[in-house]
Amino acid sequence: MSDNTALRDLPAYEAARGEADHPHSAVVRFGADMPLQLDAGGVLTPFQIAYQTYGTLNAARSNAILLCHALSGDQHAANVHPVTGKPGWWETLVGPGKPIDTDRFFVIASNVLGGCLGTTGPSSTNPATGQPYGLDLPVVTIRDMVRAQAMLVDHLGIEKLLAVVGGSMGGMQVLQWAASYPERVFAAMPIATAARHSAQNIAFHEVGRQAVMADPEWRGGRYLQEGTSPRRGLSVARMAAHITYMSDSSLHRKFGRRLQDRDGHTFSFDADFQVESYLRHQGEAFVDRFDANSYLYVTRAMDYFDLAADYGGVLANAFKGSKTRFCLVSFTSDWLFTTADSRAIVHALNASGAQVSFAEIESDKGHDSFLLDEPEFFAITRGFIDAAARAVGAL
Amino acid sequence: MSDNTALRDLPAYEAARGEADHPHSAVVRFGADMPLQLDAGGVLTPFQIAYQTYGTLNAARSNAILLCHALSGDQHAANVHPVTGKPGWWETLVGPGKPIDTDRFFVIASNVLGGCLGTTGPSSTNPATGQPYGLDLPVVTIRDMVRAQAMLVDHLGIEKLLAVVGGSMGGMQVLQWAASYPERVFAAMPIATAARHSAQNIAFHEVGRQAVMADPEWRGGRYLQEGTSPRRGLSVARMAAHITYMSDSSLHRKFGRRLQDRDGHTFSFDADFQVESYLRHQGEAFVDRFDANSYLYVTRAMDYFDLAADYGGVLANAFKGSKTRFCLVSFTSDWLFTTADSRAIVHALNASGAQVSFAEIESDKGHDSFLLDEPEFFAITRGFIDAAARAVGAL
Repeated sequence: MSDNTALRDLPAYEAARGEADHPHSAVVRFGADMPLQLDAGGVLTPFQIAYQTYGTLNAARSNAILLCHALSGDQHAANVHPVTGKPGWWETLVGPGKPIDTDRFFVIASNVLGGCLGTTGPSSTNPATGQPYGLDLPVVTIRDMVRAQAMLVDHLGIEKLLAVVGGSMGGMQVLQWAASYPERVFAAMPIATAARHSAQNIAFHEVGRQAVMADPEWRGGRYLQEGTSPRRGLSVARMAAHITYMSDSSLHRKFGRRLQDRDGHTFSFDADFQVESYLRHQGEAFVDRFDANSYLYVTRAMDYFDLAADYGGVLANAFKGSKTRFCLVSFTSDWLFTTADSRAIVHALNASGAQVSFAEIESDKGHDSFLLDEPEFFAITRGFIDAAARAVGAL
Repeated sequence: MSDNTALRDLPAYEAARGEADHPHSAVVRFGADMPLQLDAGGVLTPFQIAYQTYGTLNAARSNAILLCHALSGDQHAANVHPVTGKPGWWETLVGPGKPIDTDRFFVIASNVLGGCLGTTGPSSTNPATGQPYGLDLPVVTIRDMVRAQAMLVDHLGIEKLLAVVGGSMGGMQVLQWAASYPERVFAAMPIATAARHSAQNIAFHEVGRQAVMADPEWRGGRYLQEGTSPRRGLSVARMAAHITYMSDSSLHRKFGRRLQDRDGHTFSFDADFQVESYLRHQGEAFVDRFDANSYLYVTRAMDYFDLAADYGGVLANAFKGSKTRFCLVSFTSDWLFTTADSRAIVHALNASGAQVSFAEIESDKGHDSFLLDEPEFFAITRGFIDAAARAVGAL
């Protein structure tokens, strides 16, 4: 992990832009000899992956766990974020003595393809032009992301992962790993996810993309070259998305109809209600650390995800003969990726004869539950990971 | 009803603008002698209300039914819309022989205060300046809307309404009518509504407003004077809202993951999926008929709605001693205004000793169910209205 002191003196947005080519992370660069095959056709070359690791790889190379991040996540799962200065997004779950225990496991977290924290994405420099890719980067898929991760895992000299773990879009990557590289995944933990993106979720993503592209500062994706920034569009996109990450009851518990620093209604379009100023803050904080074009690419990758479609329309075929052991988790109040979505995966795994356990966890915190303090979820994760480690002799 | 032939030759947006001051509706103008008291303080004067009527008022003036429209509705409930040329928004329910039978009842539908189809709103001409009000119009509330409607009902010479009926924001108006003018409402039918707007719903509205105000063509609300139009912002707002009007399952049934006029993914940000092009169409069609500032005002009125707050925080007090008979309706898949919201009203009505019936109707069509072909809903409406009419001797 890098010393981030100097970096945090920069305005956050400039700091975030600097991460695209030269991140405060380990980086592996794949040259012309190692192109990345893309689902869109053709290859991406050269490209790079930015990643963090925590803990130590054992001599048998049998204790490696890959974490897959969600839409707005990155590789900074368990360290202070170099741009925001905030804790890693999964420090609840990952660290010394935590359920995914970095004292005992070698944990890898990489930025996804199409991201903006150092893995090749639309804000990276296109070597062909010396300018940011913008929309010249091919549209990528979840499978492309996973192919790139497999090259990183190769690079780290790891043949078989003890576990692949991720929530939301991260869970899609876990499912793709299990389908594409069954022999390389001993245990898979897809959390709060689905085997395909629903019409409603595609619709919410489309609203976010339209909000970004409606911002005249987006400039057809060329805002970096033109010195503009589609902040307002991206902020609106994030606000809309953020509502979907929470539940009605958690919003009610957190904010209700309470007013923000005032005694009565202002009869204006100010943020009278706490929930309004909270949402505005979420939107504004997001644009300081996230690239608008990356938002388009990563949401698109999720929309395109439909694992069964690659297997004749039968999800069970994706896991046929799999020796991977699975543990699925959903949360009762998650209306973005529901328990029904997880059950559909469980049914397919059952049909394919795979080893699978499933837990629906009672929580009123909505989709974001997988990032929050959920003791039952922690206990299940610890139990599943430890059992896998014992089974391969890594504990 | 007016002859709309000439109007529909104009581009829709221009036609919609023309409606603000000189609508294709009946209009009543209230001068300086009849100012409208506003919750924000002060008065609005002069102001006007645009309305449509259907059917004939009987000699006893006992067969009048007031319809209250929702956020994006207007007075054209049961006639061809003068701007869009489409059927009225409640022609499913209202018309000759329909559940609200215009052969037997005198039905009134007025555009709400703050709207854009002829009742005074932000796109109306401010008589003080000769320019559109824009944000100089005071922020209005549901109670203000209902006060204005009461003045219209007075103007029409009707002392007591047989029924007040409305869904969503229209249902809020129905509740407000019953609370403010109990002696003037024989029967009240609040449909798919709530006695207060939830944190989640305020949040969705705030996203919509931010989308409008983020559009540089909004110009601080002065787009009409400046010859611009915040079309893209309003379109994004409508897209986000439209998702909340449907259910996940209705979106799935209607669109699933089907592609739009293509065989495979384009690996682009085009509208690959049918649900995307549907949403884009919804957004674009909306801006042709609706004013962006009206969208701000009307959503704000809904956010401010909290009927109990005016009655010491106890909703039952709003209906104390009421002789009005109530019929509430909710739809199982409506996640914007849930059955729990309706139940909370029913409990308050029970506590206040009011006469109330309640039906939760099985439908997978989400919040929009109240606008759609729902036979059980139609039967309940017909039964309730007819019983009320018999009770007052109007049938």
